[in-house]
Amino acid sequence: MQTIPFLRKTGEAPFTDRGIKKAGQLLKPWTGEGVKGVAITGAPLSKTSISHSGAFMAPQTIRQMMHSFSTYSIEQETDMWDGVITDFGDIEMHVTDLIQSQNRIYSALKEIQSQHNGALIITLGGDHSVSAGAIKAFQETRGRVGIIQFDAHFDLRNTEDGGPSNGTPFRQLIENGVISGDQLVQLGIRDFSNGKLYHDYAKDNGVTVYTMGDIKREGLLTLLKKSVEQLKQTTDNIYISLDMDVLDQAFAPGCPAIGPGGLDSDSLIEGIQWLGENPSVKGMDIVEIDPTLDFRNMTSRLAAYIIMQFSLFYSKREGGK
Amino acid sequence: MQTIPFLRKTGEAPFTDRGIKKAGQLLKPWTGEGVKGVAITGAPLSKTSISHSGAFMAPQTIRQMMHSFSTYSIEQETDMWDGVITDFGDIEMHVTDLIQSQNRIYSALKEIQSQHNGALIITLGGDHSVSAGAIKAFQETRGRVGIIQFDAHFDLRNTEDGGPSNGTPFRQLIENGVISGDQLVQLGIRDFSNGKLYHDYAKDNGVTVYTMGDIKREGLLTLLKKSVEQLKQTTDNIYISLDMDVLDQAFAPGCPAIGPGGLDSDSLIEGIQWLGENPSVKGMDIVEIDPTLDFRNMTSRLAAYIIMQFSLFYSKREGGK
Amino acid sequence: MQTIPFLRKTGEAPFTDRGIKKAGQLLKPWTGEGVKGVAITGAPLSKTSISHSGAFMAPQTIRQMMHSFSTYSIEQETDMWDGVITDFGDIEMHVTDLIQSQNRIYSALKEIQSQHNGALIITLGGDHSVSAGAIKAFQETRGRVGIIQFDAHFDLRNTEDGGPSNGTPFRQLIENGVISGDQLVQLGIRDFSNGKLYHDYAKDNGVTVYTMGDIKREGLLTLLKKSVEQLKQTTDNIYISLDMDVLDQAFAPGCPAIGPGGLDSDSLIEGIQWLGENPSVKGMDIVEIDPTLDFRNMTSRLAAYIIMQFSLFYSKREGGK
Amino acid sequence: MQTIPFLRKTGEAPFTDRGIKKAGQLLKPWTGEGVKGVAITGAPLSKTSISHSGAFMAPQTIRQMMHSFSTYSIEQETDMWDGVITDFGDIEMHVTDLIQSQNRIYSALKEIQSQHNGALIITLGGDHSVSAGAIKAFQETRGRVGIIQFDAHFDLRNTEDGGPSNGTPFRQLIENGVISGDQLVQLGIRDFSNGKLYHDYAKDNGVTVYTMGDIKREGLLTLLKKSVEQLKQTTDNIYISLDMDVLDQAFAPGCPAIGPGGLDSDSLIEGIQWLGENPSVKGMDIVEIDPTLDFRNMTSRLAAYIIMQFSLFYSKREGGK
Amino acid sequence: MQTIPFLRKTGEAPFTDRGIKKAGQLLKPWTGEGVKGVAITGAPLSKTSISHSGAFMAPQTIRQMMHSFSTYSIEQETDMWDGVITDFGDIEMHVTDLIQSQNRIYSALKEIQSQHNGALIITLGGDHSVSAGAIKAFQETRGRVGIIQFDAHFDLRNTEDGGPSNGTPFRQLIENGVISGDQLVQLGIRDFSNGKLYHDYAKDNGVTVYTMGDIKREGLLTLLKKSVEQLKQTTDNIYISLDMDVLDQAFAPGCPAIGPGGLDSDSLIEGIQWLGENPSVKGMDIVEIDPTLDFRNMTSRLAAYIIMQFSLFYSKREGGK
Amino acid sequence: MQTIPFLRKTGEAPFTDRGIKKAGQLLKPWTGEGVKGVAITGAPLSKTSISHSGAFMAPQTIRQMMHSFSTYSIEQETDMWDGVITDFGDIEMHVTDLIQSQNRIYSALKEIQSQHNGALIITLGGDHSVSAGAIKAFQETRGRVGIIQFDAHFDLRNTEDGGPSNGTPFRQLIENGVISGDQLVQLGIRDFSNGKLYHDYAKDNGVTVYTMGDIKREGLLTLLKKSVEQLKQTTDNIYISLDMDVLDQAFAPGCPAIGPGGLDSDSLIEGIQWLGENPSVKGMDIVEIDPTLDFRNMTSRLAAYIIMQFSLFYSKREGGK
Ligand SMILES: [Ca+2]
Ligand SMILES: [Ca+2]
Ligand SMILES: [Ca+2]
Ligand SMILES: [Ca+2]
Ligand SMILES: [Ca+2]
Ligand SMILES: [Ca+2]
Ligand SMILES: [Ca+2]
Ligand SMILES: [Ca+2]
Ligand SMILES: [Ca+2]
Ligand SMILES: [Ca+2]
Ligand SMILES: [Ca+2]
Ligand SMILES: [Ca+2]
Repeated sequence: MQTIPFLRKTGEAPFTDRGIKKAGQLLKPWTGEGVKGVAITGAPLSKTSISHSGAFMAPQTIRQMMHSFSTYSIEQETDMWDGVITDFGDIEMHVTDLIQSQNRIYSALKEIQSQHNGALIITLGGDHSVSAGAIKAFQETRGRVGIIQFDAHFDLRNTEDGGPSNGTPFRQLIENGVISGDQLVQLGIRDFSNGKLYHDYAKDNGVTVYTMGDIKREGLLTLLKKSVEQLKQTTDNIYISLDMDVLDQAFAPGCPAIGPGGLDSDSLIEGIQWLGENPSVKGMDIVEIDPTLDFRNMTSRLAAYIIMQFSLFYSKREGGK
Repeated sequence: MQTIPFLRKTGEAPFTDRGIKKAGQLLKPWTGEGVKGVAITGAPLSKTSISHSGAFMAPQTIRQMMHSFSTYSIEQETDMWDGVITDFGDIEMHVTDLIQSQNRIYSALKEIQSQHNGALIITLGGDHSVSAGAIKAFQETRGRVGIIQFDAHFDLRNTEDGGPSNGTPFRQLIENGVISGDQLVQLGIRDFSNGKLYHDYAKDNGVTVYTMGDIKREGLLTLLKKSVEQLKQTTDNIYISLDMDVLDQAFAPGCPAIGPGGLDSDSLIEGIQWLGENPSVKGMDIVEIDPTLDFRNMTSRLAAYIIMQFSLFYSKREGGK
Repeated sequence: MQTIPFLRKTGEAPFTDRGIKKAGQLLKPWTGEGVKGVAITGAPLSKTSISHSGAFMAPQTIRQMMHSFSTYSIEQETDMWDGVITDFGDIEMHVTDLIQSQNRIYSALKEIQSQHNGALIITLGGDHSVSAGAIKAFQETRGRVGIIQFDAHFDLRNTEDGGPSNGTPFRQLIENGVISGDQLVQLGIRDFSNGKLYHDYAKDNGVTVYTMGDIKREGLLTLLKKSVEQLKQTTDNIYISLDMDVLDQAFAPGCPAIGPGGLDSDSLIEGIQWLGENPSVKGMDIVEIDPTLDFRNMTSRLAAYIIMQFSLFYSKREGGK
Repeated sequence: MQTIPFLRKTGEAPFTDRGIKKAGQLLKPWTGEGVKGVAITGAPLSKTSISHSGAFMAPQTIRQMMHSFSTYSIEQETDMWDGVITDFGDIEMHVTDLIQSQNRIYSALKEIQSQHNGALIITLGGDHSVSAGAIKAFQETRGRVGIIQFDAHFDLRNTEDGGPSNGTPFRQLIENGVISGDQLVQLGIRDFSNGKLYHDYAKDNGVTVYTMGDIKREGLLTLLKKSVEQLKQTTDNIYISLDMDVLDQAFAPGCPAIGPGGLDSDSLIEGIQWLGENPSVKGMDIVEIDPTLDFRNMTSRLAAYIIMQFSLFYSKREGGK
Repeated sequence: MQTIPFLRKTGEAPFTDRGIKKAGQLLKPWTGEGVKGVAITGAPLSKTSISHSGAFMAPQTIRQMMHSFSTYSIEQETDMWDGVITDFGDIEMHVTDLIQSQNRIYSALKEIQSQHNGALIITLGGDHSVSAGAIKAFQETRGRVGIIQFDAHFDLRNTEDGGPSNGTPFRQLIENGVISGDQLVQLGIRDFSNGKLYHDYAKDNGVTVYTMGDIKREGLLTLLKKSVEQLKQTTDNIYISLDMDVLDQAFAPGCPAIGPGGLDSDSLIEGIQWLGENPSVKGMDIVEIDPTLDFRNMTSRLAAYIIMQFSLFYSKREGGK
Repeated sequence: MQTIPFLRKTGEAPFTDRGIKKAGQLLKPWTGEGVKGVAITGAPLSKTSISHSGAFMAPQTIRQMMHSFSTYSIEQETDMWDGVITDFGDIEMHVTDLIQSQNRIYSALKEIQSQHNGALIITLGGDHSVSAGAIKAFQETRGRVGIIQFDAHFDLRNTEDGGPSNGTPFRQLIENGVISGDQLVQLGIRDFSNGKLYHDYAKDNGVTVYTMGDIKREGLLTLLKKSVEQLKQTTDNIYISLDMDVLDQAFAPGCPAIGPGGLDSDSLIEGIQWLGENPSVKGMDIVEIDPTLDFRNMTSRLAAYIIMQFSLFYSKREGGK
């Protein structure tokens, strides 16, 4: 075989520094073997959004943003250099049959979680509609689920007006009997972003709702601890559903439904670190980033940073993880 | 008359959910009858700006952003579903005669406030030059005015160098004898954004000035309470003049004169809520948003949110409002 | 009823000149009566696109661009001042059931064309998938259709891989027996924009294909005359399906599938004028403009100009139109 | 005096090549002496525009774009290295008194042309409203004017509806008795961009109008020759008023009133070259470029190129110029 | 090994149609074996540009744009489905030592062309500085070179003022004795884009220069035939150096040095097709596309189309190629 | 000499208000005399950046942003109206020899600081590579330097992999024996933005490192006081090296290496004020702003504001400064 000086393959990094490994390099395509630790799967579905959304591009953009970060945490003095985040790739979506696309998400994630019991799967949306299948698959493979949903919105809309969309995932889970309301805690619900009818629905079904006002008064960490305690009493494992629009528009300018009055990014990061280390947490999704609307991929970059912080604190868990 | 399935008129919402009403739907065009409660009027004038400004587009953009929000406040557990915000439309501006445009703002607003004594008019600029006429009309119909001006700038420039512009409204009001300086409280005045000559003018005329430093030290709410107490001693009603550039550039990227060192949006919202509930407050304008400079209409969206929060707390006032 | 000076309703033009009427003002919402002449209907569907598309926004943007033009043609010395273009509004799309959305397009357009025999309906896409239903409805109400398709692409893809999408409308029409291939003439088909399999399909089904090379050699007008002659022999009426990506990327920068080597806008306008005057032409759609990708709405503005030129020459037709 | 190695003053070119002089370096600020040859003056007025316009920025942007070009014409094998284009700077505009701004343009240009009889002044708008004063000043100092106006629009609107705006300059000149209609030739007038009322006005006043159709049929050069012949019979000197929106939107994307169906840039350049060499031409303005709307300053760059081609061919004139 | 339904690997196409193969799929990473036919190599160097340039990103962007096209030419009725364009990847650049980066380009390309005698290498810049090394390597491996340079600029600047930059490649080749001027034909040289000093240099060294005026008068194809005839008399093989700024700014908006008065894309494509089929042509580079400045990757998309047309006509060559 | 009414020279402010002087007007080009007080020098080098950077444009943009501010501080009730900030202009960079460019920065700054002992030079980058030369020059003219580096990154990379880049300045200073590690304090170092190898290097060399976590726990002011105390024990003067990416992406969107988890702008401003007044501080650079990536020049505007606050507090220093 011939060699040629200075050539690097298309797609490889244009410059390498011996002392820096990119977080993106931790991503290793799944090769068919059993997987442990953190793994990601893309669910590039956003035609299910009520408003126009390019969130289907987020899995690819978040992966790229992983290349903005290195593997070293100075705060923890921990280097994830030898770590691996398995990349299962993306679930293939149907062009026109959106129900089938949602079914594929459920099927693929169920198979992945069934085969890879030791893996903590982070599903990258797509819009929030992907969580319905993701959570159903999670519960069927990992036991009774307790959900911590970060969101400005309930996502409890009726499914008759527009079908199963990014406004309905938690309604679907309840209506279809997958979960009951007490398995769900919602954090960051905001003024003028929801309907009273759906707040009533949340109450009627025993969903726990913490508003932005609650967070400002009590602190996110306090509410997270309270939520995990509560959920642990009736569920086996906790699943985080992170809709990035829980953040204020100044910190997550790339969500379709941005607005003022939301969380700042530092608080969210602190919350994710705490959840990352908590042994009850066994699944997560990150949804509602539309790279076509973002500024300099800020929101995807924050998502990549959250994946790294979560993985870092996950690696600090003791024992059975 | 014939009917055709699935048709909706041009301009109507492409999707409706039975459980959600858009804040924008609260806006009802004025039909010639007497008006109560909150009402909006557009004053689309920005050729009067010292620098290039597309603020004349803000009334239309803010109305559109009202469609980003619903009618339900979860923090107050109050639904404004059946509420109405009367929309008087926009005041027609002259293409080239800017003095006439300013006169039209005064005339129209005076007529509106004279005819509709029970209405709280929110005037949507346009640039800050619109406040001169708006406040004059307010005082002539509602009694001696006390003004709470949120602004990084005094807006007390001389009117000889460039005529009555967005840098001069409060100077005009004082020079023309409409108000005396003790009727005016300025909040959020910022370093390197004003001239000493005009600070001297403020002092000489008894204007109360709170800088950003004052706000950081004492808190916006404290200063607002102090301001309202003070103004109530000598005036009949309070008028809020909200120049969005009082905010830091990270939170209001769409103002012509953005800069660092300003207010954060949460503090402003809290202040507006308090003012909304205060029975002395009887008028407001929101100015200096240029939609052509904004990112994803963030600043207009914040203005729409402020209108909703103000209206919500306004509806909580007891008695005569 | 009270009046207030200088007020104009929200949405009305900020300035009016007595000597100029905007083309956009010719658009009159349908009021339930019988319609003659040119009419438009929006088919805001683009979730059916293979690639991400905001083409669903085009009907609204094209209407806005009608306000960029006046009613007067100096070339023809004809003023359409008193003309009317009926606006049937938009067909409401389902959020998640795309097949139902396509059915609604068919149903609504069939009903419109059935009720309004004297009207020439211009359907505004949306992506090219809307043409399948539009043409079926046209034929069922107006007799055997001859289609002149301007396009860089065949749109004859198989429907098994992704369902009925913007790559399949003419395949659907043939497969479903709505038309046979000899009812279809394709103009502007381009290199490296199609598959051989589908060229074979076109040939096997008797579709007439003129490439960009053919247009450059023979001239668009020549080929249009030849096409209309040919189609008139076996069909009753001609329908124009105008995919704006038949144009070169320099002239239609807002199509999802832009590319070099296409038509220039002057040639297309000339062709549309000729077709507008031709009494055989009885229907048209304009598709594949994505306003979120465009520069200064150039492509929608061109579409609006095409509607005006078509309407102008339509009004010159003699006799029964 | 001390020296420091490698320093260059703020604003100087970061790199200099001994073999290349920038066209921008030909611009020499006026120093109070008598001027010959080509000179530029900025008239940064666009608040007079009917629609929002940043055309006031064009003089500065066109000057910057002069730095994109060198001084050497390979086609003519002529180097303008030692040439000078005098830069009179910009006329200062009033912030709010637009009539005064227009008067200042007239006064300044009259004084310049009166003092500098040997200079050919190119006035850089701004919007087209600047031409009214510019042409009046031209005629009062240079004798009876013949005008060649490149434009998609008549600019003959009535001045009652909105005052003297960018839609009225030639109407003002006729109404105020400065010119009669036979002194004016309009080239490039376009469909659906004008009102019949104003076409009638043009005809009634003896204005010569060549449409885009005329240009396509007869060729721009032919019409220019015909126009100059005609104007020379009754006027002393010819003035070019170049509204860049005479060009198609693909070639001049930065004009406020862009549209399809216009001139291509090569034809315009050829026309300008011919006019540059014609000894009758003694004045020019270039208007209606809004740098805030342009793509990569394409339209201002073209304007700079036109100034260079005009100056090059001007330098080829024999005798009295 | 386990399998999971619907998964596709990161980076794979989200949708596949059985009848369409993307041109991008023709690109096969080099695997160390001998290569025939067309091959590409990226030379991602643009720190050598006189002005700020992101042209180093073009190789990756052009590859992506290959995915905008299919493999089928309808004009030639030829499908390149089974074809291969070998992708040698990118040559690794040094961060700060630009001379070393240029040397690496030379070394890598020399090795590639030496090893792969049957391959026609298309080097993707990068800026035009990459051509100096590319052409030297070409001549040393393929025999005496005749160069056809498409460019608005001579690129014959002195190397003393700024070193070997994107303004100097052909000067370097002559000064270093690699070529003599008669081996070089320049097409598309433009007014006000060059210095007289360098035109003199071209003449003194026997370089053949065809200006845009020459192309407009004689036609590009005529000049190309004349050029190839001339070069064939004294050289062994022809190398095309395609600086995309030979095109008019309307057709190549993404070149750093855009301007009016250039070639249209159709003419260039026609020229490339003719050169692609000409058996003398044995090498090519495509340079000066800055994806950060482009609109919708139009210029990179055109480059990808040119690669496809060149490859198509290359495949039509008879005999030894 | 002739005069002409209303003319202002190209580049002068279009509007002047008698009561406001722009901060930008404080900038006076150096005229060859001795300089005292604050002075700026541009070091427009960013080809040395590891990633693509337009930071070379920042000196010019920051100067422009100085025109966004006035000279009056209301918080200090101090007007800098009669102050002067000397502008030494920019150091001329070589097009291709980046080492020479770095040497020029060192030479020019050494000469400036040697000639002007009473001046506090603020060097405007450019990328962080400019600090190596700037600090070496500072120490050679002002005595043993103590460095306070605000940065998300160590900038202690090895220089073998890519030469002296924006990732290596402090490594270069240590390796070349210019400083020892105890002369350097780093503030704001962030997770996943650095390599462990370089943290080890910092520790091994006695560099003081405060992370973002440290700042959040202890407060920036506390750490600054501690740092200055420590540095004063072994050094003569303190130099601030301000990499703007120490800020969170929400507050400095225009840095090449933006990310979440950084400092907010108010804290930084407060720190800079304290340092400005501290008599030990004798030099500063501001680096890593890329105006081509910024939104509305927010980051350059903040840099200009920082220069003003620093200069204001600098003017409050007592005695020898
Ligand atoms: Ca959600
Ligand atoms: Ca949400
Ligand atoms: Ca103000
Ligand atoms: Ca203000
Ligand atoms: Ca199509
Ligand atoms: Ca198409
Ligand atoms: Ca005009
Ligand atoms: Ca015009
Ligand atoms: Ca070149
Ligand atoms: Ca070139
Ligand atoms: Ca740094
Ligand atoms: Ca840094």
